[in-house]
Amino acid sequence: MFITFEGLDGSGKTTQAELLAEALRAEGRDVVSTREPGGTPLGEEVRRLLLEGVEMSPWAEAALFAAARAELAQAVIAPALAAGREVVCDRYVDSSLAYQGIARGLGVDRVLMLNLNATEGLLPDLTFVVLVDPEVAAARSTGSDRIEREGLELQRKVDAAYRELASMFPNRITTVDGNRPPEVIAEEIRGRLRQLS
Amino acid sequence: MFITFEGLDGSGKTTQAELLAEALRAEGRDVVSTREPGGTPLGEEVRRLLLEGVEMSPWAEAALFAAARAELAQAVIAPALAAGREVVCDRYVDSSLAYQGIARGLGVDRVLMLNLNATEGLLPDLTFVVLVDPEVAAARSTGSDRIEREGLELQRKVDAAYRELASMFPNRITTVDGNRPPEVIAEEIRGRLRQLS
Repeated sequence: MFITFEGLDGSGKTTQAELLAEALRAEGRDVVSTREPGGTPLGEEVRRLLLEGVEMSPWAEAALFAAARAELAQAVIAPALAAGREVVCDRYVDSSLAYQGIARGLGVDRVLMLNLNATEGLLPDLTFVVLVDPEVAAARSTGSDRIEREGLELQRKVDAAYRELASMFPNRITTVDGNRPPEVIAEEIRGRLRQLS
Repeated sequence: MFITFEGLDGSGKTTQAELLAEALRAEGRDVVSTREPGGTPLGEEVRRLLLEGVEMSPWAEAALFAAARAELAQAVIAPALAAGREVVCDRYVDSSLAYQGIARGLGVDRVLMLNLNATEGLLPDLTFVVLVDPEVAAARSTGSDRIEREGLELQRKVDAAYRELASMFPNRITTVDGNRPPEVIAEEIRGRLRQLS
């Protein structure tokens, strides 16, 4: 199974991705944990470009994330799934759908098409979106990269975007209330996963 | 008008792009000359990644070129065209169609779709493909970047790919025989342009 975690920076999604990977390993499952952008040499370069604040238009940004995602899909995720392993990934295509597709207004359909091309159609089986108030996420987040510096207005749009995506893809995306202790949220996620498998 | 030049490295396309830009300027036209990847800060970073040989799969490479192209389209080409200027570009979408779409086997339709998304549909009005024997091009080329180092076999595939693209898009793409003195080729290109405008 290919499981992704989504949410604002500071939502707690990274912690939840780690807790789920640990729980699956404790059950004896073979789990590959990865993150995006990053997780490959190209992905780390993309992360660096974003951190350094190289100027780019919204479609260039979307295509750059798609390049990092294509590399992660082909070098890490697809081989792991083919070998029967579980994959837990911190951010994937829904980040582009939320940030570039909805918040920046490029359109979910067009950004999805770009990504389906680049990843050869590799979508997650299941996605957990960790929802917290944008104000709370902003307070927790380090705010160090180019996108985070754009501030609360963008974060509010992205929060609304994730809720919209959850209603567009109800079978794949599950939202969880991130305003609770991490272990409570993790238990809900494991419960949902047991329901489905 | 948006005019692009394509061909193998070492085909003489860069010289032809420069000669056409000069000729148009001599006629009093306002011309923007640019090249790909490069031409923008993001494009230069992409050029650097390719030169450095960061590992990447064919779809990641295609998406990375699309990111550089999207930035060039939105930051340079579209504004110039909107201001009534002519744009002459050394490589553009047909490079991806030839190298990634045909030579690497990703498919012209899928690579074109990726690029139409990323560039918001900005295609050239006219494209000149400078054809020379792959052996001749290889001998002239510096052979310094990651793609060029892949050698003659790839160059032969790309040469065949450009011929195929010319038959797929006969109204947009004109092939010119690059095995002649530069000024002779340049005169043919200017003649073709006068025919069309």
